[in-house]
Amino acid sequence: MELLDKIKNRTAKIGIIGLGYVGLPLALEFAKKGFEVIGFDVDEKKIPLIQKGKSYIKHIKEERIKEAVDAKKFSATSDFSRLPEADAIIICVPTPLDEHREPDMTYIVNTADVISKYLRKGQLVSLESTTYPGTTDEILLPLFEDAPNIQKGTKDGKKFKVGEDFYLAFSPEREDPNNANYSTATIPKVVGGYTPECLKTANALYSSIIVKTVPVSSTRAAEATKLLENIYRSVNIALVNELKMVFDRMNIDVWEVIEAASTKPFGYHPFYPGPGLGGHCIPIDPFYLTWKAREFEVHTRFIELAGEINTHMPYYVVQRAAEALNERKKSLNGSKVLILGIAYKKDIDDVRESPSLRLIELFKQKGADVSYNDLFIKKLWKTRKYNYDMESVELNEQNLKKYDLVVLSTDHTGYDYDFIYKHSNLIVDTRNAFRKNGLINGKVVKA
Amino acid sequence: MELLDKIKNRTAKIGIIGLGYVGLPLALEFAKKGFEVIGFDVDEKKIPLIQKGKSYIKHIKEERIKEAVDAKKFSATSDFSRLPEADAIIICVPTPLDEHREPDMTYIVNTADVISKYLRKGQLVSLESTTYPGTTDEILLPLFEDAPNIQKGTKDGKKFKVGEDFYLAFSPEREDPNNANYSTATIPKVVGGYTPECLKTANALYSSIIVKTVPVSSTRAAEATKLLENIYRSVNIALVNELKMVFDRMNIDVWEVIEAASTKPFGYHPFYPGPGLGGHCIPIDPFYLTWKAREFEVHTRFIELAGEINTHMPYYVVQRAAEALNERKKSLNGSKVLILGIAYKKDIDDVRESPSLRLIELFKQKGADVSYNDLFIKKLWKTRKYNYDMESVELNEQNLKKYDLVVLSTDHTGYDYDFIYKHSNLIVDTRNAFRKNGLINGKVVKA
Repeated sequence: MELLDKIKNRTAKIGIIGLGYVGLPLALEFAKKGFEVIGFDVDEKKIPLIQKGKSYIKHIKEERIKEAVDAKKFSATSDFSRLPEADAIIICVPTPLDEHREPDMTYIVNTADVISKYLRKGQLVSLESTTYPGTTDEILLPLFEDAPNIQKGTKDGKKFKVGEDFYLAFSPEREDPNNANYSTATIPKVVGGYTPECLKTANALYSSIIVKTVPVSSTRAAEATKLLENIYRSVNIALVNELKMVFDRMNIDVWEVIEAASTKPFGYHPFYPGPGLGGHCIPIDPFYLTWKAREFEVHTRFIELAGEINTHMPYYVVQRAAEALNERKKSLNGSKVLILGIAYKKDIDDVRESPSLRLIELFKQKGADVSYNDLFIKKLWKTRKYNYDMESVELNEQNLKKYDLVVLSTDHTGYDYDFIYKHSNLIVDTRNAFRKNGLINGKVVKA
Repeated sequence: MELLDKIKNRTAKIGIIGLGYVGLPLALEFAKKGFEVIGFDVDEKKIPLIQKGKSYIKHIKEERIKEAVDAKKFSATSDFSRLPEADAIIICVPTPLDEHREPDMTYIVNTADVISKYLRKGQLVSLESTTYPGTTDEILLPLFEDAPNIQKGTKDGKKFKVGEDFYLAFSPEREDPNNANYSTATIPKVVGGYTPECLKTANALYSSIIVKTVPVSSTRAAEATKLLENIYRSVNIALVNELKMVFDRMNIDVWEVIEAASTKPFGYHPFYPGPGLGGHCIPIDPFYLTWKAREFEVHTRFIELAGEINTHMPYYVVQRAAEALNERKKSLNGSKVLILGIAYKKDIDDVRESPSLRLIELFKQKGADVSYNDLFIKKLWKTRKYNYDMESVELNEQNLKKYDLVVLSTDHTGYDYDFIYKHSNLIVDTRNAFRKNGLINGKVVKA
């Protein structure tokens, strides 16, 4: 088969739609292995940056982009009419939730619409965006089957068929920014095809850049796999968050208990509490299944409960902070509060769904005068939910002393905990970072 | 200190109360390391068995008992007046739930009562039974402080004090029957003491037989650790059970999805669905925290939800079985049903809380004619909940053909799945055992 041969000898051109946290490293991986890659993005700001070999994502090194661009293996465009140039099209667009916590399929649908305009015989389309089981078959396939070039078919009037004339697959991304042990090429990749030929083609494509692929029986099974992975995380984080609140009340240190449980050499894996869930996956993905399940008249009660507890956590932190101030005869209203860490996890510069943004809002609602510091985010930008006009405060002695309360929300490795401890009046620690650094006394309150 | 020296040179006598799944292997471990052990049990049937070197637990080999008894390192008695002979007393009694799912503390309280009758200066008492945080301090300590010998104290009227004259600790058992990789001596052991001296003494005791001890700050932290381990398991099993029901409805194979997710090299650990929870830990322990939490006016919602879903699973299996029969125009009422596997997990002979026992009851309620086979349980005995007069049916061609339905509940390794498949009319498989063995067609229904 033509496409399989092209994949084998690496002459297949790869089109990647969406050059964000998933699409960009994937493009670089294909380029590195000798494929020519065209990156597509509706965000026109990204195009000249890539063409100049610049990175716009902290954990993706400029050299990698520059190398791929210089070798003429990677270019970027916002001109989707170039889609027919690609032999394989990989979709890496976001799948957020709307404000009623339902799937926002706009990006997928718009992308599939554009693809169907240009879809041609011989192309493979693979979706990587996390989504509910059925998306590939129910949304992409009908659009593609209706695509003009597919409908037209051969000259003798025979329409083109999926699995014979074009191919459709789902292969969930498993990116983990800043994971020191694993990256795009070394994380096994699950692949599901609409037909066995679709699977064979997609599997060949991914096998040429990734150490191990995991073929499954259907696109639905592949879609469900990614959801299971993130549901597992969401539920387990919520579980320790609930237990933190229970153990707090009983005056038992949940961090000590987790550390002790972690010494069990089988059957236990630690998760840690925090100020709430962040990132583009864990707080969002599980609700894609919740939404789809309703169509089948079943309910995903663990996902709902996890969502409830995890979204409650910023409120819990604010409540603990108010109690700590109250013990010192201060009210939250009028207090100066400094939040440390805005990124949704340590050592990255990504604020998507970060609970710190929620904390700022909740503290402000209670009348606190809120500032923040983040080692990687010098200025807050507008997000879909928030629009703060704030800049990171410098962490020096004078500044720290000004605040009634310092709240550690994200425990960046670069924080000097001794220094912060020394000069702060009161600390609410949501990450156990001060205790881990041996800093315990009445000044540090767990939350 | 006298006791520490005795532990060091292994002349300390160890008294172990409760010679079951926890106490018996622990006694053997102490004996093996050169300590003299007296085993105490209210069940008088066990005493002559041990004295004759016989085992009453399948996975504990007779030779181990015989060796310890022959070396005069291990004897058993039901005479608790011999408690003063022991320098260290370890409590390994059951902590079940009553029929309203509340902690049944009878065994602990009765044991503590007996100990307090005999408690003497210099003794260490360590509790290993899984229980709610606070048990050691709130139940054991007051009884021991009131013990006659402790109250009497020295001749000059000075009462004996915990941490100085006697010692109190909590160290949760982590037994995992049939675990090929870990046993009593190689599973790290968490230890909490009522005072630092209590911890020091208990830690010395366990260190002399176990590869690694994990000292924690209090008995409460140690009690909470064991609960966290089992809550984690209970919740994760319930989560996959819920997802099984959701994916079943969507016609997605949950087993395939779990297998695919397991290829993620970080952040995911597989749990498997089944016909419900069994064993003496996972279905029970979490509710000890639920019960205690109410005293603090907090709720353990994950534990409650997990309990609800896990106890629903046998009903789900029966429902799937009825549907499978219905498709063949048969009713469950009047059908002949054979349940395979009664033990609560594979390759053991323990039926405590086994969902198979519940399945028998539910199938009978629906009018089915129920039989069972188990490789290790030839005859059912009376349990706290059930009293079946049934014997294991032989698995031969003629017998299998007689049944309208075979339900695989516990997937003992010794089952010949090809043979069962070949001769059964219809199979409901709760363990994915037939598919794993390549046996898939309309005859096998997942549940």
